[in-house]
Amino acid sequence: MKSKKIAIMGLGTVGGGAYDILAANREYIKSTQGVDITVAAILDRDKAPLEKRGIDSSLFCDSVDKLAADPDIELVIETMGGVEPAKTFITKLLKAGKSVVTANKELLAKHWSELEPIAKQNGCGLYFEASCVGGVPIVRALGESFQGDKVKSVYGIINGTTNYILSKMSSEKLDYGQALSEAQALGFAEADPTSDVEGYDAAYKLSILASLAFHTCIPYTDIYREGITKITSQDIYNAHALGYEIKLLAIGKRDGNDVEARVHPVFVPSDHALASVSGAYNAVYLNGDHVGDLMFYGAGAGAHPTGSAIISDVIKALEGKPTYCDFENSGKFGKDINFINDFESGYYICFTVDDKTGVLSKISTVLSDNGVSIKSAIQRTGKADTATLLFLTHKAREHAVMHALDTIRKFDTVRSIDSIIRVL
Amino acid sequence: MKSKKIAIMGLGTVGGGAYDILAANREYIKSTQGVDITVAAILDRDKAPLEKRGIDSSLFCDSVDKLAADPDIELVIETMGGVEPAKTFITKLLKAGKSVVTANKELLAKHWSELEPIAKQNGCGLYFEASCVGGVPIVRALGESFQGDKVKSVYGIINGTTNYILSKMSSEKLDYGQALSEAQALGFAEADPTSDVEGYDAAYKLSILASLAFHTCIPYTDIYREGITKITSQDIYNAHALGYEIKLLAIGKRDGNDVEARVHPVFVPSDHALASVSGAYNAVYLNGDHVGDLMFYGAGAGAHPTGSAIISDVIKALEGKPTYCDFENSGKFGKDINFINDFESGYYICFTVDDKTGVLSKISTVLSDNGVSIKSAIQRTGKADTATLLFLTHKAREHAVMHALDTIRKFDTVRSIDSIIRVL
Repeated sequence: MKSKKIAIMGLGTVGGGAYDILAANREYIKSTQGVDITVAAILDRDKAPLEKRGIDSSLFCDSVDKLAADPDIELVIETMGGVEPAKTFITKLLKAGKSVVTANKELLAKHWSELEPIAKQNGCGLYFEASCVGGVPIVRALGESFQGDKVKSVYGIINGTTNYILSKMSSEKLDYGQALSEAQALGFAEADPTSDVEGYDAAYKLSILASLAFHTCIPYTDIYREGITKITSQDIYNAHALGYEIKLLAIGKRDGNDVEARVHPVFVPSDHALASVSGAYNAVYLNGDHVGDLMFYGAGAGAHPTGSAIISDVIKALEGKPTYCDFENSGKFGKDINFINDFESGYYICFTVDDKTGVLSKISTVLSDNGVSIKSAIQRTGKADTATLLFLTHKAREHAVMHALDTIRKFDTVRSIDSIIRVL
Repeated sequence: MKSKKIAIMGLGTVGGGAYDILAANREYIKSTQGVDITVAAILDRDKAPLEKRGIDSSLFCDSVDKLAADPDIELVIETMGGVEPAKTFITKLLKAGKSVVTANKELLAKHWSELEPIAKQNGCGLYFEASCVGGVPIVRALGESFQGDKVKSVYGIINGTTNYILSKMSSEKLDYGQALSEAQALGFAEADPTSDVEGYDAAYKLSILASLAFHTCIPYTDIYREGITKITSQDIYNAHALGYEIKLLAIGKRDGNDVEARVHPVFVPSDHALASVSGAYNAVYLNGDHVGDLMFYGAGAGAHPTGSAIISDVIKALEGKPTYCDFENSGKFGKDINFINDFESGYYICFTVDDKTGVLSKISTVLSDNGVSIKSAIQRTGKADTATLLFLTHKAREHAVMHALDTIRKFDTVRSIDSIIRVL
């Protein structure tokens, strides 16, 4: 039986979840994995998180340099979150030859290309299953399954907070602010929810997943990003009336050297499996040129599901030699990538217009002139001499739709363009 | 760049699919995986399968001894199927130190405990991702993800042929014989469909998946097995009327040392995700004590999805050192397993009875006396003075239900018990 000592940096929700699993299943892990894992040190701001869990305060460590210098510690779990000081700490640990298991998608999306070479130079590993989609083993699958396939797409619901908010708006007819407050009260959203609701978190994860899927670096700064803060209860009402749910999707597609990478709200048909992924659950679809369609579903966040992914990485790191994605050295891949902004999609568009004869026809004509074909249109009488116009379009080019809307926006009879939401 | 030579034994559907992927994506695999894989020999009964694919007949090999003796061949794909001669061939290859990648669930379920030690003694690997659920990487997930979790259940639709037949019966109102004929005509069922339709194939796979999930050998002979040949169009009609679909499920559960392992048709609620898994698609649910619920979905069979799993194993085998499940040496696990036959389930039961007053009440009383609580009951007038009685029960013990039915079967007023199908 191997005995291994590890450390945890950041005993918050996820770090605590990882600690719990080791405490609860230590004997089971010994029996089934042949390794006895002991948490020998916990780095945090103070001892409070240890005391809260009844952990002996002698494990408390106040300096990453001590962890880096401790010859007994082979591996460190990083569950602090954020870029700094996590980046500085991980760099020190990797340089000291200690493998790092991290749940930090922001750090990875922003600095993967700096951190991986340091790990490689020092013969240790950088593991990050927990950074994407909680307990769902999608990072492992992208690295170690269907390696013979060209992955053509990876997409799905990969942010639990926004999915919780949109599910609440849908099922309980709440408006965005009410649903956000409820999510915050229950711990599903942070006090400053920007990273989740503006789509940054999903873009970080898509950067990681698409890079693995397409074997090339997909910087998160190249990902088109739009959050859910503008989604109204009226949009949800209209979506239901038309047979859809609204979900925040992350979408990565590759066709030759053309890559699409985008995060935005999407009208998902009610009978599509993604429409019924609700609350904090996540689901990721993959399409490979030989394996076809695959779907992975599970808890996208939470102390124990994410902790489970961390412990999986810890066991993997302790038993084998690390592998590297090594995008810089992978030959032609990455160099010729062409990011496509003019992607194809269906569109839901909602206008407030003057309630006059001919407005519907005028708008339809502009859409048609731009090659945007209308699938269905609904006109409703609105307040004070206005009407609401809803359009669902067939697949059209993003630029064509935006060009048509630029023209329509200038019409005197068009009071406002209230919503533009893409359709799956 | 590493160059590796491999061989294929059995160039049928799946072996051909694996060959296709290597041919189509050789350059992509070189770029992304850093290995150049060449098929150096193909063993089959004759050269016809090679000729059909335009493969140079110089690759033809007529003897496993030649493969075993060829120092250039590192690894052999076994896609012959069946126990013999696959078992003899694989044994020879492992003894010669060559890793084997197999799609052969029957061989594995029956002889895993003999073959794995031979691989281990000779320092080579036995890989079998392709043996279960086609292209869905469920074997890899069970071995290399959530290793810190106690897996409590693994269940789902893991046989594509029966799912195709049941889907056809459901959507096109065919009877079993018609749906089977259609499946055979399209290549989804074999000329002798016994292994699929009687649940053997699902039991083989469940043996493999449950053994991995529970870290202990679950012999397929200990798995309760019931096929779909008795499912009638009337059962499907009744299922729809009650809000269900009928699916063949494989179910593994573990609670401490108590294990349930069974394959049988199940009434699945229409709004459950498994109800909408149709045609040749498969889906597997997992529950871990920390990761919670996970679901994996994809093509359960077919040349290219299964070939994709084979190539994944080939790449894994060529790049690293093999791991072993090693159930014999895993300490206390396996030795104390207690197989539970008296499991808990809901039940759908259909009777033909005399159309007389009091029969429904008499049957209900016997069920109630045995602790079987009725959720809903429907009585319909049948042919010639008979009535059809349908019951859905709440969760009850299998033995209690069977004991009640033994009593009911003896009533003069009960003409027949037409169906007993468990409910999810």
